[in-house]
Amino acid sequence: MGEFDLLARVMDRLPPPGARLRLGPGDDAAVTVPGGATATSVDALVEGVHFRRDRASLRQIGAKALATALSDLAAVGAEPGEAYVVLGVPDDLDEDGCIEALDGIADCAAATGTTLAGGDVSRSPVLSFAITVVGHAPGPEQLVGRGGARPGDVLVLTGAIGGAAAGLLAEELPDSGPRLPEEIAGRLRERLLVPVPRLEAGRALAAAGATAMIDVSDGLGGDAGHLAERSGVGLRIDAEALPLDRGVADLAEAAGREPLRLAVSGGEDYELLATLPAEGLDLAALAAAAGVAVTQVGEAVAGGGVEIRLPGGRLLEPVGFDQLG
Amino acid sequence: MGEFDLLARVMDRLPPPGARLRLGPGDDAAVTVPGGATATSVDALVEGVHFRRDRASLRQIGAKALATALSDLAAVGAEPGEAYVVLGVPDDLDEDGCIEALDGIADCAAATGTTLAGGDVSRSPVLSFAITVVGHAPGPEQLVGRGGARPGDVLVLTGAIGGAAAGLLAEELPDSGPRLPEEIAGRLRERLLVPVPRLEAGRALAAAGATAMIDVSDGLGGDAGHLAERSGVGLRIDAEALPLDRGVADLAEAAGREPLRLAVSGGEDYELLATLPAEGLDLAALAAAAGVAVTQVGEAVAGGGVEIRLPGGRLLEPVGFDQLG
Repeated sequence: MGEFDLLARVMDRLPPPGARLRLGPGDDAAVTVPGGATATSVDALVEGVHFRRDRASLRQIGAKALATALSDLAAVGAEPGEAYVVLGVPDDLDEDGCIEALDGIADCAAATGTTLAGGDVSRSPVLSFAITVVGHAPGPEQLVGRGGARPGDVLVLTGAIGGAAAGLLAEELPDSGPRLPEEIAGRLRERLLVPVPRLEAGRALAAAGATAMIDVSDGLGGDAGHLAERSGVGLRIDAEALPLDRGVADLAEAAGREPLRLAVSGGEDYELLATLPAEGLDLAALAAAAGVAVTQVGEAVAGGGVEIRLPGGRLLEPVGFDQLG
Repeated sequence: MGEFDLLARVMDRLPPPGARLRLGPGDDAAVTVPGGATATSVDALVEGVHFRRDRASLRQIGAKALATALSDLAAVGAEPGEAYVVLGVPDDLDEDGCIEALDGIADCAAATGTTLAGGDVSRSPVLSFAITVVGHAPGPEQLVGRGGARPGDVLVLTGAIGGAAAGLLAEELPDSGPRLPEEIAGRLRERLLVPVPRLEAGRALAAAGATAMIDVSDGLGGDAGHLAERSGVGLRIDAEALPLDRGVADLAEAAGREPLRLAVSGGEDYELLATLPAEGLDLAALAAAAGVAVTQVGEAVAGGGVEIRLPGGRLLEPVGFDQLG
């Protein structure tokens, strides 16, 4: 099965390419006319490491591969532009299987306005994706890194967290144990399997003057630490202010876990954590522009490190991924 | 082993980033300020499919991974800009091994003026690379695709071909058979293991008005076919005009093969094949600008397909890779 044949089959299914693309798949390189600044990120997803084919459909796996890559563009406040997909195909996946995975990628591309501009296909011992995403902004000053937070800045979080970790936990609960209502369990599984990159929110936060931003992929505790370290500030987070996905508390209870600890330790929520100057901050207007809830969850302070404070002043220690299961 | 630790170790070894890079490794996305047009290409290299660790050093494997990716930028005439590296690391490769492979990538980056601007590291069943390269040009009209060849155009080839296929054949000759002088055999192996992307030549050919261009990665016969099909022309190639690498004839004889058939069928030469208008073409000036020999090997004609003519008019049929070994 050649790269070109596969691409031809998937090209029929794609929305028309964006105006920036001048030369697309089938040439040695894609040619684009970018704007003032570009943001580029690469992500690998490997079967057995990042996903399992018995836990999600190929279409979901493909869609998640692009969605998680685009989350990095959201985290700098870029408008999504082009994606380039390297697909590693194992012997037990036929061409229809490849098309199903690529259809998932195309679903996410269509939903986000991303142009699939190129790719490569190779044999591989396991199914794998390496996805490059390119985003755009009028100039580099419109894009937000991790390093600009200042003491006194307000710390905000989009959406709600804990859902992906709870979805993972739900899959691992014994059948004999307490069950969640199917509607809630289904939403938690979807949170895990089909994350939504916060692209609109990222641009809204950047436009509102965000000084630093990161997407919450490794767990709020860990990612807050990355932002704090890179900015040279400390972050104080009010645990009671953290918005949890619906069902996280019930699921945690059923599994004998603390909901807040689950939420700040579990990864894959793909919400945005950002700092903004306190002066003139209008959270309601920001949420309207972001298209999702924006909650103040803490502040940046002089010093370093991350403190997540429970009521009464006790500190919550995030646990690692390995201790979650 | 974390992505960040590895990147920190390899960053020390890198030349300073290019002027386009505003935000580099360690943030969610790299931020660049591109020129008028960008060319982007992605390439996968998978152990057991594209390379074997017992046939080349990790440093050579890394260097070749970036070099072959950059060859696609040469083929559109772009100036190399940034590279993004996804590294898949198997359990039997330790951090020093990763560094050795990344040092190879850094060698090639330094030699070509490419900035390593980001990456991702994942566990993987086998060693694998997915490399994205981004090149630049003042505008899209300075970049050359595969589709612009016109009947009457002259067909030219940079450098010489057959060396990589001969290097592969040399590795597979029985020890008891005839041997090539070590100096020649070493050069053929190097042609296979450490290809040189023809970046300067690609820009020179684009500046000279190349109407279509492709890099010879799958064998001259096959790649000429891609160019002909995309342009809607036929290509007539004069087999006697084809420049062969030194040692190809001797090696082919030792292995009982026809040198020309080996040269047009074997891949991985990474020379450039381009069409240019015949009028005003100055091959000597072009070779001087390209920094490598540029040889007229045929012409574009109305119709389709590729004919490689031997003396006396007999046609040479390229064979597939699989029939080479």
